Amino acid sequence: MVTVTNKQVIFKQVMPTGLPKKDVTTQLGSVELDIDNVDLAGGVLTRNIACSLDPTMRNRMKGNINYFSPPYQVGKPVTAIGLAEIYRSEMEEFKKGDIVAVWDLAIEEWSVRSKESTVTFRKFDPLPGLSITTYLGAAGMTGMTAYMSIKEIIGDLKPGNTMFVTGAAGAVGQMVVQIARQAGVKVIASAGSDQKVKYLEQELGVERAFNYKTADFNKELAAFGAQTNGINYYYDNVGGEQLEAYINNAARYGVIVGCGYISGYNAEKPEDVHYPKNLFNIVTKELKYQGFIVSSFLPKWMARFLQEIPPMLAEGKIKVSEDVTFGIDGAEDAFTRLFTGETEGKVTVLFDTERAEHFNVKPRKGGNL
Amino acid sequence: MVTVTNKQVIFKQVMPTGLPKKDVTTQLGSVELDIDNVDLAGGVLTRNIACSLDPTMRNRMKGNINYFSPPYQVGKPVTAIGLAEIYRSEMEEFKKGDIVAVWDLAIEEWSVRSKESTVTFRKFDPLPGLSITTYLGAAGMTGMTAYMSIKEIIGDLKPGNTMFVTGAAGAVGQMVVQIARQAGVKVIASAGSDQKVKYLEQELGVERAFNYKTADFNKELAAFGAQTNGINYYYDNVGGEQLEAYINNAARYGVIVGCGYISGYNAEKPEDVHYPKNLFNIVTKELKYQGFIVSSFLPKWMARFLQEIPPMLAEGKIKVSEDVTFGIDGAEDAFTRLFTGETEGKVTVLFDTERAEHFNVKPRKGGNL
Repeated sequence: MVTVTNKQVIFKQVMPTGLPKKDVTTQLGSVELDIDNVDLAGGVLTRNIACSLDPTMRNRMKGNINYFSPPYQVGKPVTAIGLAEIYRSEMEEFKKGDIVAVWDLAIEEWSVRSKESTVTFRKFDPLPGLSITTYLGAAGMTGMTAYMSIKEIIGDLKPGNTMFVTGAAGAVGQMVVQIARQAGVKVIASAGSDQKVKYLEQELGVERAFNYKTADFNKELAAFGAQTNGINYYYDNVGGEQLEAYINNAARYGVIVGCGYISGYNAEKPEDVHYPKNLFNIVTKELKYQGFIVSSFLPKWMARFLQEIPPMLAEGKIKVSEDVTFGIDGAEDAFTRLFTGETEGKVTVLFDTERAEHFNVKPRKGGNL
Repeated sequence: MVTVTNKQVIFKQVMPTGLPKKDVTTQLGSVELDIDNVDLAGGVLTRNIACSLDPTMRNRMKGNINYFSPPYQVGKPVTAIGLAEIYRSEMEEFKKGDIVAVWDLAIEEWSVRSKESTVTFRKFDPLPGLSITTYLGAAGMTGMTAYMSIKEIIGDLKPGNTMFVTGAAGAVGQMVVQIARQAGVKVIASAGSDQKVKYLEQELGVERAFNYKTADFNKELAAFGAQTNGINYYYDNVGGEQLEAYINNAARYGVIVGCGYISGYNAEKPEDVHYPKNLFNIVTKELKYQGFIVSSFLPKWMARFLQEIPPMLAEGKIKVSEDVTFGIDGAEDAFTRLFTGETEGKVTVLFDTERAEHFNVKPRKGGNL
């Protein structure tokens, strides 16, 4: 009988506004688990490897707000997109050692899953040489989000056209920027620190980047857009004032991919959220502003994604920047960093730190190892 | 030598905000014209029949605001979409008696047009029995706007789906409502008077109509949308608070056809214009909000429009409500009525009142004859 202490991040309190707080909104907890004998009732026991942390999770902490994903339940572990290894199985589909991507992984080190709940599992074989956490990012949902939303809403990118990308140093943003550059699109990108701006210009090769906290958006966008009579595409992770600035500087028939509205997620009061005061231009410039949730389009675009993006990653045509926190104890702090701008690319948490080398995972530079 | 007094509506003063004012923004004027001898320099002389009046013209009175149509020039006649008869021609393409639809007709009784400027003419043969002013409305730009924007942005309407239409008693709105009903779509419509609401429900057969000045939008839309888990389509002529209410009550994957933003056209101060404070839902509900100007899509959809809509008009499947002002003297008042809600369908002005019977035109009920 092997009993382990199964550490978990528990959702503690509904938090309608403001930044999530460690020990208030969520809390670290643990349960003892006899991993050899726990009753699986026909399901599986997973040894959880890692999970992704995404701003969208913030909205599931707000109680019932009619969000497209259900609210987290007080007293239960927070869930996220994750990776796991099958440790024991009473199902034919899974055997010990299988690696699965899990849509709704509980943030805990071990999980018992009913047979029915494994509908959210997708088995895959990690490529040797790639960090396994890449399958939570560039080769996983992050990459799919960037790739599929561009395909679905913009269609084929036109070389020579211009694109504005906000949250460009974030996980999705970095992928968008590089996919656009590979297609010959000229990119102006914004981020929240001078260091990120430098990274975007020097490492990712965007034509122009600016710090949205200090720059004059309208001036930046007007100058950049002059080459194409306004900016053709806007990949919007942020909303608010930068969305307004894009609309002011959009080209006729401009397209806005609405991937997020992070500027509004943590507002203390509804009136603190900025909404564009120039929607009239959507009509007069014949813009298209379309929202997108990647899960809606997985079947439609998965085959083309797998055909195009992983080879680019393998060939180094697309660079990956990862921000891996080692150990579940750091998950809450890592989640908070999503909103304070201190992240360094795709944010993930490696639970299974003992096997970091086996899975090719390296910790974040400012990391806690 | 026949000299006529050519009455004109002259643009007098740039008017950035507020309602346009007769004798301030525009002014009636006239010039003497020798219609038999005036030099055509290779062009044509047209005897102008009628013109359309549209809210979009308001934006051309605001000076240079980077609008998609150029601003009106002080001292020159206001232009509009119109109909004319060729009176004299020095061009091979046109002969006396030809009827033409003109994209940029000066609001005056006679016009000398250079050869080059006739690029905006389109010759057509009016169907006997239809009022010629219908070619400015249901069989003309109004009908094309409604039909082509639905085709371009929504695609094929799905029977059983729900649609919200604002400005539904207006020219475009009435066409939209009827095209949707013909396709089996359930329609909730709004207008600015109880009389219009009654007309929409009793004459145009919408399932539900409400007076936006007195109704609780959110309640109305929530109740109507319950049958389809939110409202599937929104045809937006108005913007502002009703746009916000739609976004609150939109179905997943809802589509907004952005045809106008009339609630903002005459604001005294920019801060008086209402902009939706819930754009976050564009992302989470995966909505599409797309603006549209009909001139962008004429080549693409003209053949299908002519094939589908005029026969429906001829068969009475689509009803036409026209608001024809007789005589150019009434043009300015008619234009003002566009913004005060006192119109009775598609607003046009018949210049050539002597031939009203010949052209099958009847005046508005509250009209000035």
